[in-house]
Amino acid sequence: MVLFHNPLFGRCLVLDGIVQLTQKDEFIYHEMFVHCPFLGLRSTPESVLIIGGADGGVLREVLTYEEVKRVVHVEIDEAVLKACKKYLPEVCGDWNDPRVELIIGDGAKYVKEAKERGEKFDCILLDSTDPVGPAIVLFEPPFHKDLFDILNDGGVVVRQSGLPLTMPKVMPFVFKRFQDFFQTVEVYRAPVPTYGDEMAFVAATKGPQGISKSNKERVGRFYNPKIHEAAFALPTWWTELIDNFEDTGEVPIDSLY
Amino acid sequence: MVLFHNPLFGRCLVLDGIVQLTQKDEFIYHEMFVHCPFLGLRSTPESVLIIGGADGGVLREVLTYEEVKRVVHVEIDEAVLKACKKYLPEVCGDWNDPRVELIIGDGAKYVKEAKERGEKFDCILLDSTDPVGPAIVLFEPPFHKDLFDILNDGGVVVRQSGLPLTMPKVMPFVFKRFQDFFQTVEVYRAPVPTYGDEMAFVAATKGPQGISKSNKERVGRFYNPKIHEAAFALPTWWTELIDNFEDTGEVPIDSLY
Repeated sequence: MVLFHNPLFGRCLVLDGIVQLTQKDEFIYHEMFVHCPFLGLRSTPESVLIIGGADGGVLREVLTYEEVKRVVHVEIDEAVLKACKKYLPEVCGDWNDPRVELIIGDGAKYVKEAKERGEKFDCILLDSTDPVGPAIVLFEPPFHKDLFDILNDGGVVVRQSGLPLTMPKVMPFVFKRFQDFFQTVEVYRAPVPTYGDEMAFVAATKGPQGISKSNKERVGRFYNPKIHEAAFALPTWWTELIDNFEDTGEVPIDSLY
Repeated sequence: MVLFHNPLFGRCLVLDGIVQLTQKDEFIYHEMFVHCPFLGLRSTPESVLIIGGADGGVLREVLTYEEVKRVVHVEIDEAVLKACKKYLPEVCGDWNDPRVELIIGDGAKYVKEAKERGEKFDCILLDSTDPVGPAIVLFEPPFHKDLFDILNDGGVVVRQSGLPLTMPKVMPFVFKRFQDFFQTVEVYRAPVPTYGDEMAFVAATKGPQGISKSNKERVGRFYNPKIHEAAFALPTWWTELIDNFEDTGEVPIDSLY
């Protein structure tokens, strides 16, 4: 973990050699990550599971919804979480909110145990690092099946799925793995300057309804209902990445790493 | 002018210290620059004026339309054009196409003289560098009036208008200057990784019809009809940049330079 200041982007968080977020534009990533599933579903999620996202930005946006009754936040790296709390306080959600259960631990393990307990969620947000190092387990098949099993009917799981230009296999891989179990799988885009390209999110819904249209009026710094719908329009070459993906079943470790 | 090779982006063209294009993603910029006005207008432009764009990428996309009968391409820097022809041949349009008149000269001067001659165009594409150095004259008020005067009724002018994150005054400035004369002014976005942010284009139409919807089916590597429409959905903070812009009438030289 490295934290540094850049004159244009403000404070920047680096994990495993990759810039994860900056003060300047984290709002684009976090608003799009949370508002698209929350406003795209017909009814606002009440129970939410967040895996990863040590910076607390996803948690922050989730907690703006008063309909939310329970948030389980599972993060493997307490040191990162503490550093963000100290150096990026305006990014962090409030882990002291009575609706929040913070668990320092392995996300895949939590999901497996939640399934055994019969626990379910309306929305699962996978804000992990890319499929390298500790995050690899979150891209493997058993995890996807467990995700499906702990999601309520009509619920949605969204995963940050990398940058198609520099890691062209991640988004199609996530798309295919979600299609193994979920009825509706959609891809949407968020242009985050920090990442140098549009970030892909893959959303899988347990039911026939996707999340590509906004069901409620809400305006953020980046997000608004028109932006919501526009995010689901895909460049031709993204669609071709999915159509032409050679699915070996293996988690793709792109050459970038 | 500097040309260099980057392992990820391929050949890169630098002018005045700013990367202008790379082989990897020039298609995003050029497709969005040309197809949005060409397919957004009710009838395809037949007469086209291109100012700047020494690399010939805009020309290339314009020449794909068989409806185009005449293209005047005015470029001030022959050395850049020749270098692109030699080192980036797959980017360049064909200046030997019988429909093309290439003029090495000052774009503002050409527009003034065209107006005196009573010459008119259906579409004008301003592919200049940012408002610094030789391009400044293309951002001053007399030029905008001349543009209006040499545009046919129902025609459109589109200008690349910078990166709102790093040069927040350029897009709102262009928007206001076009509004001084044109009935319909719209902004659209193209996410070009080379620029590190979404590029803003401002389109001004001489008439009540804008160009935000595609009128014909066409699919490029980036462009498609859904992407066309999506490009006109603006992030909330872009709209706020326009609404809150302090218009002094001066060409904004952003602190980036």
